[in-house]
Amino acid sequence: MAIQPLLKSLQRRSLHHSLGERSPLPNSSHKICFHLKQHCTSYLIFFCVGTNMVNAGNMNGSGNLMDFLDEPFPDVGTYEDFHTIDWLREKSRDTDRHRKITNKSKESIWEFIKSLLDAWSGWVVMLLIGLLAGTLAGVIDLAVDWMTDLKEGVCLSAFWYSHEQCCWTSNEATFEDRDKCPQWQKWSELLVNKSEGASAYILNYFLYILWALLFAFLAVSLVRVFAPYACGSGIPEIKTILSGFIIRGYLGKWTLLIKTVTLVLVVSSGLSLGKEGPLVHVACCCGNFFSSLFSKYSKNEGKRREVLSAAAAAGVSVAFGAPIGGVLFSLEEVSYYFPLKTLWRSFFAALVAAFTLRSINPFGNSRLVLFYVEYHTPWYMAELFPFILLGVFGGLWGTLFIRCNIAWCRRRKTTRLGKYPVLEVIAVTAITAIIAYPNPYTRRSTSELISELFNDCGLCDYINDPNMTRPVDDIPDRPAGIGVYMAMWQLALALVFKIIITIFTFGMKIPSGLFIPSMAVGAIAGRIVGIGVEQLAYHHHDWIIFRNWCRPGADCVTPGLYAMVGAAACLGGVTRMTVSLVVIMFELTGGLEYIVPLMAAAVTSKWVADAFGKEGIYEAHIHLNGYPFLDVKDEFTHRTLATDVMRPRRGEAPLSVLTQDSMTVEDVETLIKETDYNGFPVVVSKDSERLIGFAQRRELILAIKNARQRQDGVVSNSVIYFTEEPPEVPANSPHPLKLRRILNLSPFTVTDHTPMETVVDIFRKLGLRQCLVTRSGRLLGIITKKDVLRHMAQMANQDPESIMFN
Amino acid sequence: MAIQPLLKSLQRRSLHHSLGERSPLPNSSHKICFHLKQHCTSYLIFFCVGTNMVNAGNMNGSGNLMDFLDEPFPDVGTYEDFHTIDWLREKSRDTDRHRKITNKSKESIWEFIKSLLDAWSGWVVMLLIGLLAGTLAGVIDLAVDWMTDLKEGVCLSAFWYSHEQCCWTSNEATFEDRDKCPQWQKWSELLVNKSEGASAYILNYFLYILWALLFAFLAVSLVRVFAPYACGSGIPEIKTILSGFIIRGYLGKWTLLIKTVTLVLVVSSGLSLGKEGPLVHVACCCGNFFSSLFSKYSKNEGKRREVLSAAAAAGVSVAFGAPIGGVLFSLEEVSYYFPLKTLWRSFFAALVAAFTLRSINPFGNSRLVLFYVEYHTPWYMAELFPFILLGVFGGLWGTLFIRCNIAWCRRRKTTRLGKYPVLEVIAVTAITAIIAYPNPYTRRSTSELISELFNDCGLCDYINDPNMTRPVDDIPDRPAGIGVYMAMWQLALALVFKIIITIFTFGMKIPSGLFIPSMAVGAIAGRIVGIGVEQLAYHHHDWIIFRNWCRPGADCVTPGLYAMVGAAACLGGVTRMTVSLVVIMFELTGGLEYIVPLMAAAVTSKWVADAFGKEGIYEAHIHLNGYPFLDVKDEFTHRTLATDVMRPRRGEAPLSVLTQDSMTVEDVETLIKETDYNGFPVVVSKDSERLIGFAQRRELILAIKNARQRQDGVVSNSVIYFTEEPPEVPANSPHPLKLRRILNLSPFTVTDHTPMETVVDIFRKLGLRQCLVTRSGRLLGIITKKDVLRHMAQMANQDPESIMFN
Repeated sequence: MAIQPLLKSLQRRSLHHSLGERSPLPNSSHKICFHLKQHCTSYLIFFCVGTNMVNAGNMNGSGNLMDFLDEPFPDVGTYEDFHTIDWLREKSRDTDRHRKITNKSKESIWEFIKSLLDAWSGWVVMLLIGLLAGTLAGVIDLAVDWMTDLKEGVCLSAFWYSHEQCCWTSNEATFEDRDKCPQWQKWSELLVNKSEGASAYILNYFLYILWALLFAFLAVSLVRVFAPYACGSGIPEIKTILSGFIIRGYLGKWTLLIKTVTLVLVVSSGLSLGKEGPLVHVACCCGNFFSSLFSKYSKNEGKRREVLSAAAAAGVSVAFGAPIGGVLFSLEEVSYYFPLKTLWRSFFAALVAAFTLRSINPFGNSRLVLFYVEYHTPWYMAELFPFILLGVFGGLWGTLFIRCNIAWCRRRKTTRLGKYPVLEVIAVTAITAIIAYPNPYTRRSTSELISELFNDCGLCDYINDPNMTRPVDDIPDRPAGIGVYMAMWQLALALVFKIIITIFTFGMKIPSGLFIPSMAVGAIAGRIVGIGVEQLAYHHHDWIIFRNWCRPGADCVTPGLYAMVGAAACLGGVTRMTVSLVVIMFELTGGLEYIVPLMAAAVTSKWVADAFGKEGIYEAHIHLNGYPFLDVKDEFTHRTLATDVMRPRRGEAPLSVLTQDSMTVEDVETLIKETDYNGFPVVVSKDSERLIGFAQRRELILAIKNARQRQDGVVSNSVIYFTEEPPEVPANSPHPLKLRRILNLSPFTVTDHTPMETVVDIFRKLGLRQCLVTRSGRLLGIITKKDVLRHMAQMANQDPESIMFN
Repeated sequence: MAIQPLLKSLQRRSLHHSLGERSPLPNSSHKICFHLKQHCTSYLIFFCVGTNMVNAGNMNGSGNLMDFLDEPFPDVGTYEDFHTIDWLREKSRDTDRHRKITNKSKESIWEFIKSLLDAWSGWVVMLLIGLLAGTLAGVIDLAVDWMTDLKEGVCLSAFWYSHEQCCWTSNEATFEDRDKCPQWQKWSELLVNKSEGASAYILNYFLYILWALLFAFLAVSLVRVFAPYACGSGIPEIKTILSGFIIRGYLGKWTLLIKTVTLVLVVSSGLSLGKEGPLVHVACCCGNFFSSLFSKYSKNEGKRREVLSAAAAAGVSVAFGAPIGGVLFSLEEVSYYFPLKTLWRSFFAALVAAFTLRSINPFGNSRLVLFYVEYHTPWYMAELFPFILLGVFGGLWGTLFIRCNIAWCRRRKTTRLGKYPVLEVIAVTAITAIIAYPNPYTRRSTSELISELFNDCGLCDYINDPNMTRPVDDIPDRPAGIGVYMAMWQLALALVFKIIITIFTFGMKIPSGLFIPSMAVGAIAGRIVGIGVEQLAYHHHDWIIFRNWCRPGADCVTPGLYAMVGAAACLGGVTRMTVSLVVIMFELTGGLEYIVPLMAAAVTSKWVADAFGKEGIYEAHIHLNGYPFLDVKDEFTHRTLATDVMRPRRGEAPLSVLTQDSMTVEDVETLIKETDYNGFPVVVSKDSERLIGFAQRRELILAIKNARQRQDGVVSNSVIYFTEEPPEVPANSPHPLKLRRILNLSPFTVTDHTPMETVVDIFRKLGLRQCLVTRSGRLLGIITKKDVLRHMAQMANQDPESIMFN
């Protein structure tokens, strides 16, 4: 997670380049990219090249005084790295582009076809994202399957077969002993020709650990060397990016490649992590890649984010086999700006991805996930009590996990621990492998474990009635056999182990998702509770709570359902998802039967967890990293006013402003050099302080540089003017420089008496970067997004300095 | 639909009352209510009583000069009928209320419990809405079932049994002749003891028409006398109300009662209309009723709309048995302000409603709708072509329907036709009944027809292979028998009839939904195409397109699927729903198998229909009625500026403003009397025109009235001041009146150069009523929501005068 030190140094460096040494920005941005190594080059292509567009949406000079700067110049309208975009401006630019295309389309057939292509490009991008995300998910599933089994043995007939594939292709194996076929050999069988006994066990154990360490080492090395952004689940950063922040390279091609490869490695290594969260990151990388192919998206940061929202939906769709759940996840959890058009397109992308994955059919069962369930036994009202208990457990687990994980990650950031990421991964992998191997429930992959816990006959060592002829679906409750008691112990140990190790695993410098470990914790707890209730009901039919619905010989308790409810509760406690969680679980079961238990558990879990702290794990990591994320879910309820938040505060130096027609080029350059503000309000004069507009720092620098290079007569004491008409200057003074083109004539203003809750609302809904504060028409100050976030942190008794970016 | 004349006269009258005769507003609003008859009384209770709240969110006077008006006075913060609410203000008020409760909750245990109750009230309201909406839907289903059958005959054993219930209870009936049991007698059997022959047919025909006319007459009379707002589908008005408009009584108790009763009557009368749209209205009435029980919702128009959004979801949930589809419908189609909290609660309400309906089980099959399907035969890529054709048909039907229906409704509004609503209903019912009876496909209820068309064996008179032993699900394609050819003809006639009669039915003065007739049109067309393709495939196995997937004896074409795809296409063409449509159809089939055909048809249909006009039927009716609805889906792409839209225009009289401390009570009263603006900007002085704040007309009137009545020394030439400190007045002048309390110190401003697309965005996203326009700090003009809408209409070459309300 902690890409922050890198970010900080980069931010400082970029400031240094663009200000201190007055190097022109294209170079500076090149230099930034250089520091981010190769994976940044992809960005250079579509950030630094495609910029000959005018930011005309906000410019409304009637243009009767054409001079050089009325022509567009390069790099206007792009953003620096680690800055926040201005949504209104992006939208305005897109409308402008659209208007231009519509007007042109009437000119010729060719232009008309081009306009049609432009209109269709959104759907094409979605199709491509769906295809690629589905394919990658399928490939990852297949590879994980093979490599997980590789830790235990190898297929003699074809080494690239997983255990299951190996035995499926062998005709000898019946369904019963599907996992015992001669082609599949454990390492001990292959190496020392022994399959039983202590020495074989130890050899297998040793090789299991060795493979795990090899995979983990490879993964962490690849991440460190090629793509530092490939670590973590990626969802906190994607949330921040979708809210308008720019992190170049975070969704680049290198990240895509390395994350895909290392994801396979780390999941196969048996670490307590899942591939679901990282799949969202992978899908967003796909989205970013394809949006770079169409100028409509590559040149507009706002439009690009629409594509990314849809890509996130496709990612969840393939991660859980839940297209509708994916769209709702994108809507509820990750997206910031989600117009209805995006909803429709997200749905399309999610469906294409799901169908692509289904046609790859990685699990050989026409299902998109391993833990799909298909039972339809009813549940009873009295069971709501254990379901709600599971909800409480989920909430408590969520709180515990978030607190401990954040504390550990903070420790990693601030102590020497963070300096040895490879060692950390190796150590955690070794501990995981050593503890996991002896327990059959932790040895297998976590999704297999979840699948077994969900399925009704996952733990089937009951004392069987020999006369039973019913189908498997309808087995009555039976007394537990010794195997079940044994399994209970093993599950309890697995639960404790998973809880502890996951806290240390999530946040290491490898791709790591949180969905699967959380679900595993919940599924284990749920299954234990379920078996408990089942045995209770079996042995005490006559208790008043069981009498009504549980006759002897009936199948009244479904432990698999408890596992599912527990999984939903734990996932809800950690992520605080609500609707999308229930819909994903609904799509996993394919029926409305279990929606009430699932909802009860999800609601309880969220309430319990919220009682200890409102933040989900993703928001907590966003805060930890100091990203400028203005959460739509946080309600701001304090009674402060804009005047309390704006800068300059009382006693501070007055606001740095430009005047409309009295400052020289040198004055402006000095101002730019001496301050590090991202923009400057332009006023009529320093005395009247009546606001005219707002000029971006970046565009000022570019414009002055361009003018100095290409326009004659512009020298240090040329007067800069932002008005339509040039100011009256003495006869012998140099030619004045008109910069009205870069002036935003419609800056956003609020009065100093505006309640902060309204200001926060405006920032959120309109996606502003800054807002000017006036009183009776006079400019008083400025509020930036960072100021808003810092104020919110302060009001919530947090450290305002934790918000680092603008 | 056409409640407009009433509205217009009301608006005029309310203006008259509040201005011309200077009657104080509470009285005037009482008079408005009086004109709306009884169903308005419910509103009086929670609009006119619960108003002793202060609009403190926007008021930030530090209050060091306490005088009378610093106390709250009644009626501040409410809105007049047919006005738009100010979302920011409502939100601000709610935050304030919340803050107050939170602060109080620390004082005592009792206050803490009260705060908990307040926090929980949202969930309680949702639960109640779900229960009532589900129950009403169940009752309506049962009643419709019975009354539809009553047109044909009666059950002798119990007259309140429908045909099916009658024969289910009779033990003699086998499954085969379920609809021929002795207890059920056709009218001819009962009256003249004849079941066959021409005279019996004519008697039955006659009684069928008579019953239909009776039902329709009752319905239209009830609507006219008791609840004029109960007519139509209600969705256009609900969309407008959710966007912030106030139509008192539209969601009142009388509307709820009458709409429920008349809905049963009109559906039973056999008219070409459905109950699905009106069910949404009914659910919203439930929502409004329950929200009136909790002050959190009854006193805040913004919060109330959150409840209504969720209620709409519950309505669709029971209408289609699709809880997730309902939530997405509410999100995509009807809601305006849809925070995530509402998403979660809507989901809860939709689920409760669905489970309530399921426990009532109106259709005796544990399903929520009659036309649930359960086949899982695969489809083939080549079939996409007919599916897309059906999409094109759906789009064309949508366009045709919207154009013709709007033309007819406009005719009804503008000509004498509109004066005889009862006669119109009677005539249409008579025509419908006369034409419908002879055709078996139109005689039965439309949902039964759809169910039969969807089901794979709905038209089973094929030439059967006598040796066939396969299950019904897997019947191979067979040559069509004479019955199928006959059915094709009847279906074709039914199609033409439905298309024509629906155009005239939708919009009459009775409750009328559009979903079911649209789906019926599509299902008929789809079934015809499906049977065509099936026969083609049967007779031409060897054609290249069939060769790959359709061997002789295989079940390769499912005509029921075509019917479903056609239904989705036609529904999409009329309503332009997308995601919610696909999800509703997905929930009807319960599997992902058919999502691709459904999506292909829905997308095609939307594209085709959009090519002829962007408006769906609901938006078209909103425009027809001139409601102030700012659609989030319309993109504003013109290049105009705020200065082009604001008033006063060039050459108009200057803006009416108040000054902060120089106008007397009489000046203000004159200004109020002479203008009809909803509010006035307050400036420093007429010369400087620097903006201080904004005062609402309604609150000005109330404040002055209150002050005159209850504060000594306030006379006509008292100076009104909005500043903190009283102005300096000559010694002998009367006591000045401080009105800072009602001044909004944070009015929304934009500069005159702001592009209109940004202004439209701001109005949409922040839900403003008005926005002030400034240039370098000077007040230039004002833009109201009406101005924005009129400008948008003008730019779209529509009549700007069609926007009537503010």
